[in-house]
Amino acid sequence: MTPLSPTARTRIGRLPERAARDRSDLYRVLDDGMICHLGLIVDGSPRVIPTGYGRLDDTLYLHGSTGASSLRAGPTQDVCVTVTHLDGIVIARSLFHHSMNYRSAVIFGTPRLVDDPDEKLAGLRAITENLSPGQWDVARQPTRKEMAAVSVLALSLDEASVKIRQGGPSDDDEDYALDVWAGVVPVHQTFGEPSPDPVLRPGIPVPGHIAHRANGDSAIGP
Amino acid sequence: MTPLSPTARTRIGRLPERAARDRSDLYRVLDDGMICHLGLIVDGSPRVIPTGYGRLDDTLYLHGSTGASSLRAGPTQDVCVTVTHLDGIVIARSLFHHSMNYRSAVIFGTPRLVDDPDEKLAGLRAITENLSPGQWDVARQPTRKEMAAVSVLALSLDEASVKIRQGGPSDDDEDYALDVWAGVVPVHQTFGEPSPDPVLRPGIPVPGHIAHRANGDSAIGP
Repeated sequence: MTPLSPTARTRIGRLPERAARDRSDLYRVLDDGMICHLGLIVDGSPRVIPTGYGRLDDTLYLHGSTGASSLRAGPTQDVCVTVTHLDGIVIARSLFHHSMNYRSAVIFGTPRLVDDPDEKLAGLRAITENLSPGQWDVARQPTRKEMAAVSVLALSLDEASVKIRQGGPSDDDEDYALDVWAGVVPVHQTFGEPSPDPVLRPGIPVPGHIAHRANGDSAIGP
Repeated sequence: MTPLSPTARTRIGRLPERAARDRSDLYRVLDDGMICHLGLIVDGSPRVIPTGYGRLDDTLYLHGSTGASSLRAGPTQDVCVTVTHLDGIVIARSLFHHSMNYRSAVIFGTPRLVDDPDEKLAGLRAITENLSPGQWDVARQPTRKEMAAVSVLALSLDEASVKIRQGGPSDDDEDYALDVWAGVVPVHQTFGEPSPDPVLRPGIPVPGHIAHRANGDSAIGP
């Protein structure tokens, strides 16, 4: 496994002590997330689009309708993909030192439009499995026509950075004497009870790979 | 209250039935969120940065260190700010129709660097209160030096769009006969028990405005 090697774009300018150095940190931030924010330039302006994704080794896969302008523009230009987890609100004694605990990954690169049918299927599988692990093998597989209606983009994880802030507040020395509560309010993303489709055929139970998430077995995050 | 008037950039191209028409939908999506993703062009490439924000009427406020390159570049160019809530994973009978329930707001515009001290303070207050309502009045106020170390940007909400997907899966007619579970797995963002700073002075209780969030009184989202 190679370390995260900063380029001019991925070098952390502000608060460099928050930069993670290890590629495994990047994998963890990506694998804990379900949506990314894709940044593109459209008609000269930045555009930021939330979308699903999946990871296979050192490639991030994105998908969308072949009609979506974001994917039409994507393969021809640099993009930036950011995945962020908000883990806590950091309450300090002074307003100035309020902060957030977070983990974020930022990836730069020019995506490649996936033509190979096997890689396209593998990319779609990675995206689906990232959203709902175990789902790919139980739902109806895509038809040829459905595959043609979807574009898949592959983005290398070569140029990426990870920034992590955790722990309590850091106040100015003289403020520790104040009678002001300080600490962290954790923020969690969790799954609720699965809600069946009202027209679901009777007698089909919630499958185990879906049911166990609602039990908190797989709360998202650290 | 004026409706959301689409421009070329905010007109929803894909799945226009998901576009919200009312400005109150924009307010709700923004006020339910704690971080946005700010899109900028830096050296010709898109960059997407997670950051806090606050709203006052039809202005969104962002802040950062005066040393941050994102804020140095911000006032001179168009930016895009996106706030996204993931509300559920939509499990369909076919892989093709898997989806997510979400609410997202996208705002375009050229931010204005806030010079007026009163507006700057009001903007910082909005950002803090969005993160931890009630906090502004209990923590130590910013000093003149601290104010000088922070830049505040104001972005008008004039050019904005909101996209909302909710409800169950929409499968192809013939797939409703399949023995495959379908429905929605809700996703919630919640607050955990406040964790005091290990060096907190003894006898300072968790204030009510912070404690009540952990009790689920103010779970984030719909």
